[in-house]
Amino acid sequence: MGEKMSVLSTPEQALGAAREVAAVLAKDAVERDRAGVEPLAEAQLLRDAGLPALLLPASVGGAGLDWATGLRVVRTIAEADGSIAQLLGYHYVNAANLVWVGDASVLRRWGTPSAAEQWLWGDAVNPVDPDLELVPDGHGYLLRGRKNFATGVSTGDASVVSGTVRHPDGTPGDHLLVVVRGDDPGLHRGGDWDNLGQRLSASGSVTFHDVRITPEHVVGALGGDHATASASLVTPAIQSVFGNLYLGIAQGALATAREYTLSTSRPWLLSDSTRAAADPYVLANYGRLVSSVRAVQALADEAAEELARADAAGVSLTWEARGELAELIAALKVTSTDVALNVTSTIFELTGARATNNAVGLDRFWRNVRTHTLHDPVAYKQREVGDHFLNGTHPPFTLYT
Amino acid sequence: MGEKMSVLSTPEQALGAAREVAAVLAKDAVERDRAGVEPLAEAQLLRDAGLPALLLPASVGGAGLDWATGLRVVRTIAEADGSIAQLLGYHYVNAANLVWVGDASVLRRWGTPSAAEQWLWGDAVNPVDPDLELVPDGHGYLLRGRKNFATGVSTGDASVVSGTVRHPDGTPGDHLLVVVRGDDPGLHRGGDWDNLGQRLSASGSVTFHDVRITPEHVVGALGGDHATASASLVTPAIQSVFGNLYLGIAQGALATAREYTLSTSRPWLLSDSTRAAADPYVLANYGRLVSSVRAVQALADEAAEELARADAAGVSLTWEARGELAELIAALKVTSTDVALNVTSTIFELTGARATNNAVGLDRFWRNVRTHTLHDPVAYKQREVGDHFLNGTHPPFTLYT
Amino acid sequence: MGEKMSVLSTPEQALGAAREVAAVLAKDAVERDRAGVEPLAEAQLLRDAGLPALLLPASVGGAGLDWATGLRVVRTIAEADGSIAQLLGYHYVNAANLVWVGDASVLRRWGTPSAAEQWLWGDAVNPVDPDLELVPDGHGYLLRGRKNFATGVSTGDASVVSGTVRHPDGTPGDHLLVVVRGDDPGLHRGGDWDNLGQRLSASGSVTFHDVRITPEHVVGALGGDHATASASLVTPAIQSVFGNLYLGIAQGALATAREYTLSTSRPWLLSDSTRAAADPYVLANYGRLVSSVRAVQALADEAAEELARADAAGVSLTWEARGELAELIAALKVTSTDVALNVTSTIFELTGARATNNAVGLDRFWRNVRTHTLHDPVAYKQREVGDHFLNGTHPPFTLYT
Amino acid sequence: MGEKMSVLSTPEQALGAAREVAAVLAKDAVERDRAGVEPLAEAQLLRDAGLPALLLPASVGGAGLDWATGLRVVRTIAEADGSIAQLLGYHYVNAANLVWVGDASVLRRWGTPSAAEQWLWGDAVNPVDPDLELVPDGHGYLLRGRKNFATGVSTGDASVVSGTVRHPDGTPGDHLLVVVRGDDPGLHRGGDWDNLGQRLSASGSVTFHDVRITPEHVVGALGGDHATASASLVTPAIQSVFGNLYLGIAQGALATAREYTLSTSRPWLLSDSTRAAADPYVLANYGRLVSSVRAVQALADEAAEELARADAAGVSLTWEARGELAELIAALKVTSTDVALNVTSTIFELTGARATNNAVGLDRFWRNVRTHTLHDPVAYKQREVGDHFLNGTHPPFTLYT
Repeated sequence: MGEKMSVLSTPEQALGAAREVAAVLAKDAVERDRAGVEPLAEAQLLRDAGLPALLLPASVGGAGLDWATGLRVVRTIAEADGSIAQLLGYHYVNAANLVWVGDASVLRRWGTPSAAEQWLWGDAVNPVDPDLELVPDGHGYLLRGRKNFATGVSTGDASVVSGTVRHPDGTPGDHLLVVVRGDDPGLHRGGDWDNLGQRLSASGSVTFHDVRITPEHVVGALGGDHATASASLVTPAIQSVFGNLYLGIAQGALATAREYTLSTSRPWLLSDSTRAAADPYVLANYGRLVSSVRAVQALADEAAEELARADAAGVSLTWEARGELAELIAALKVTSTDVALNVTSTIFELTGARATNNAVGLDRFWRNVRTHTLHDPVAYKQREVGDHFLNGTHPPFTLYT
Repeated sequence: MGEKMSVLSTPEQALGAAREVAAVLAKDAVERDRAGVEPLAEAQLLRDAGLPALLLPASVGGAGLDWATGLRVVRTIAEADGSIAQLLGYHYVNAANLVWVGDASVLRRWGTPSAAEQWLWGDAVNPVDPDLELVPDGHGYLLRGRKNFATGVSTGDASVVSGTVRHPDGTPGDHLLVVVRGDDPGLHRGGDWDNLGQRLSASGSVTFHDVRITPEHVVGALGGDHATASASLVTPAIQSVFGNLYLGIAQGALATAREYTLSTSRPWLLSDSTRAAADPYVLANYGRLVSSVRAVQALADEAAEELARADAAGVSLTWEARGELAELIAALKVTSTDVALNVTSTIFELTGARATNNAVGLDRFWRNVRTHTLHDPVAYKQREVGDHFLNGTHPPFTLYT
Repeated sequence: MGEKMSVLSTPEQALGAAREVAAVLAKDAVERDRAGVEPLAEAQLLRDAGLPALLLPASVGGAGLDWATGLRVVRTIAEADGSIAQLLGYHYVNAANLVWVGDASVLRRWGTPSAAEQWLWGDAVNPVDPDLELVPDGHGYLLRGRKNFATGVSTGDASVVSGTVRHPDGTPGDHLLVVVRGDDPGLHRGGDWDNLGQRLSASGSVTFHDVRITPEHVVGALGGDHATASASLVTPAIQSVFGNLYLGIAQGALATAREYTLSTSRPWLLSDSTRAAADPYVLANYGRLVSSVRAVQALADEAAEELARADAAGVSLTWEARGELAELIAALKVTSTDVALNVTSTIFELTGARATNNAVGLDRFWRNVRTHTLHDPVAYKQREVGDHFLNGTHPPFTLYT
Repeated sequence: MGEKMSVLSTPEQALGAAREVAAVLAKDAVERDRAGVEPLAEAQLLRDAGLPALLLPASVGGAGLDWATGLRVVRTIAEADGSIAQLLGYHYVNAANLVWVGDASVLRRWGTPSAAEQWLWGDAVNPVDPDLELVPDGHGYLLRGRKNFATGVSTGDASVVSGTVRHPDGTPGDHLLVVVRGDDPGLHRGGDWDNLGQRLSASGSVTFHDVRITPEHVVGALGGDHATASASLVTPAIQSVFGNLYLGIAQGALATAREYTLSTSRPWLLSDSTRAAADPYVLANYGRLVSSVRAVQALADEAAEELARADAAGVSLTWEARGELAELIAALKVTSTDVALNVTSTIFELTGARATNNAVGLDRFWRNVRTHTLHDPVAYKQREVGDHFLNGTHPPFTLYT
């Protein structure tokens, strides 16, 4: 494993590894999607390629590469398999909390094995569900409650979990981020993720039955007075994962459609062309879609560089800079959603009626985008961008803004 | 059965029966769609309701209602189940060929049992596949060959099938429309319809192994010198079935989404509203979609009346009038495609992330529209409408124009 | 004049007259639009054609035709000149208040000369501006104040004006609709309508300097406890005028573009076609636009019939029926806005770069639609339709809903 | 002048100068647009700021900055005045021909005074018009003929003009690029540019009456066997000017709308907000538009860097690299056209009905985009991008591809 990690010391190597993983995933993407089995093999594929430790600091044994590289890796995986790209992208954000929210000792304690063993991190922090409770017990807490959606917990070596301390008198205390190991006996996975898309993203529910949280399991306090611009990078980071996920899926959809058009599509009865790939409407429609994807790609690249810069700034990151970054990434969310939905539905018009055969599986791209883009309503991201443009406001730090 | 038929003597009764069938189909639409079983029970439901004989002339025992009613019935069924609406709509067109292509004796011979026993008619006429062959044999022919898509043949009491006479010297002769009974031993169903949408439309392949065609099985000659405007109504009729299919599916999608929004959706975290159904973006988005569907509905109603008028004109129908009708229906095809694709994808933004759960099954509407709208490329329908508007042309009669 | 009126006794005659007026207006529409002169000559053209008295009851000497005809007339004029269509459409609504708000004596008093002399009616009722004041004086009132937009007052033989009675103690009283004659000395026209589009719609400001309002000038009370469903038809009526205005402008834009494409456009350098009107993209784009207009046209026709029905119902019209009518017309507003904006901007892509020459004047269609569609925000019409669909609500009666 | 040039030695200084020019142009943009006077004063403003010599090599006295900077300067000017941005952007491409098509002596001869005196270059090369003729005469030629559109010739210190050598026997010879000075007595300006938008872009016709072309006036041969990838950069360069022009206009439109919304717009009667700038629909619509512009901006930035790289590669530029660059810029053309048309029309919905007053002049943005985006049909750019994506083709070098 350490051998592999040493290989991924440059962005080029990381992208090369990502392309190799994507090629493997692409081979049976349709079949795996249909089977809908817990993605344990896929998770192992990521580990074997050395991808999980990509963004962990070199000081703890990680590859120490930056977010610009990490997001391109996520995008590359998404071209082949949106679910596994989600697993990896969420993992990068989850593990980054060791740096953003934790202190040096937290990073050392959890980052070191994480890098050495290529851990994948899940999370249970969804703020739409009721808070988990941290009931004081001895020097630590007992973690209790349920989250309906908890990506990667069921496949994770460890997870970051947010909960609110409940004092004996019932009053709520700090909102803490804690670590739960994947093999903790109090951790129960629902195995109940049966949704339209992102079927292999291990996003089912999870219940915590008095999981013991020692002080060593506490990463730090989330939000409130403790919030720093740096610690709040979790939201722009996860939102930029989303943008690259949608972009990658759209690119994968176009590449798959191209292959079908070239190999299998027939020109329409009324077309003057002898090849589908020479039909004027097929050409112009591809061009329109490809152009729209190119623009989103440029924006994703720019946003990735900005996120890397903000991450590198560390504690010197200002709230102003964090706010501008968040708006850039919100614009990415808005445009990538729009473009990916359009691309993944329109490719059928470029491949023709026979491409609806389930053996082709061309619908998985749309299902994946349609499902995940609902994570948080795009109308409210539009409003956020508009409010910033008009009124110069930055939204308060939440797990959505 | 005859009892039932007598019930459907007015448009109101027909629509009432359609609504009852739709209500039954709606109950387990998600489960039936997932199971993907040959729709034999659904076909029987249509027969029991007396819907198949709706458009057959009273002279042979049919309800003698007009196309305006028939298309509204198709639309109503489509709100609940696009597949079964396709089966019924195709049936209406197939059976109408007894009138449009056949003469009085053909109508009497096949229309009488069809009305008395509420036959459903399938078809094997897809012109994209190679022609079937009619090999002269005695006073009739032997029918040979395969069609890749043949809606309703596998559930049909009878089917209309087009084939080309192959003379002994190999030269092709007339292009004939013939009847094949559903229980003909030479008829082999592929059972191979496994596509993204319209999963219960019985649209798999069919092979004819020397099916005996007597002179009594010949409906008439298709196209060529034999074409009359009246006989060519088959294309505007099937295209208007398409438009009503997409419209009905879009209406069903909106009704289903409404129920979910009202019963289950939660307002977004950042919304000022306490109900999802009061959120300003949810309201305006519903309004945008509903408005677009309303316009297509008005166009579908107008086109249905025009088709009924053209049908009633019989042999006095002019090619000019047939051409104008075809353009009106082409405009319906273009707009219903656009609106139905948009509605069925956007409803997810109105219901929220949890509505992607497969138990909800909200994706069936998009899958049905996405699949069937590829029947013939909408770009070429746009071109047809544009050519007519600019250059005053009417396309030649084909099974697509 | 009476001679002319007797001519327009059928819908066909009315539409024939409208087409003749439109043909005259079309001849120099570009030049008149550029000159921007008060449309006195155009108003006289409408009078000479007998169009103003079209909807007045036969009992007072009007043609007694219905709203379905009136709206088609407005649409026909709009194909040639959006401004004059606005003048006429607003007039129809203004004059209809004699029936909807006034009683039999009001109708007789004002309707009789209106029909005999083909009066055009303007209005000053815009609720966005501050209310006009009706200061009690003798048996009547003095009308005071200013309205920033008052279509048709400057060209009108008479106008309907809304004001609020101000009691001597300063408290507000009834909100009344009153008549002001065009030659009243207290009526001052601002002559200040200098806007992007609808340049000849006589929509400038108007100031009332103690205009004497006798009891004979009072049409009736607006809204409040006095409101009946029938009296509230003013809003659906004016909104359906809007829809037909946008539709007519879009149809005029397409017809004008067609003429240019056929007569003047050249095929693009890289096109395989030898005529612009045979280019595949030109054809498909025309077809897309024409199809979208066809759907709106069908909806406008349906809405026009429904408005005629509601008008004919008179005092027996229920609030429920009025609400359903308003929603149908709101859907027309939403779709006609969308389609007309798209059509009037996109026609340039069908005619080519040289069609931007100001001598062609192809931009007037977009300017007219862009300007008038801002009358009330389409987003709020979307919300209204959505609220009705989701929650079954009908908006309260206002001059916008 | 030299003093000024020395100031613009960095990209920051260039952009600073551009912003200052833009601020001056913005002040009376509406009035100047309406007046439509030949932009002589505006041209002088560009010269005084030292912008014309920005991209000329330092070896001849230019600022030696790269295309990435040049395109950002064009974009900045376009925010305030699309016409003047067109003048400057075309100038950059015209003057670059001295490097791309000419040899070292050509560059020295014409580049030196051009840099020293901040010449602006126009062009007469439009390939849609018939070719100009170069009739051999002595050691040179006489230039004859007319071009219908010739941006910047009427304000230019010099122009690049393309013509075909006509041999005495009538056969055509080389296609040459030659220089014509602005004060040449044989140069007649039509002064006939009266179009919808880009009214100050000096794009009228020009006629050449036996203009004497000495060997010193010949820049080089265009296309044919002489074409190199480097010499063909003129097309990607002018197309990237277009993209930045549309982008800058869209940005200017949004900034102008914002100012109006904040200062003048009123919340809609039915809105719950007390400020237009807090209305949910206004916010989300701004956000949608701003996001789409952000994506195009990122693509424009990427394309600008790539063009600068290709320019720097000089004769080592491969056709493959030139082809990839052209596709990237074609995607920019497609997306910037789409976004700019949408933004410039939709801003009216964000500012409201009163913003259609001609004193506001908000329509100039749409008129500018609508006019210039017709330069070459966007459908054929879509086809070009699609053909490249599907079939891997690069279009042959023309002045459009």
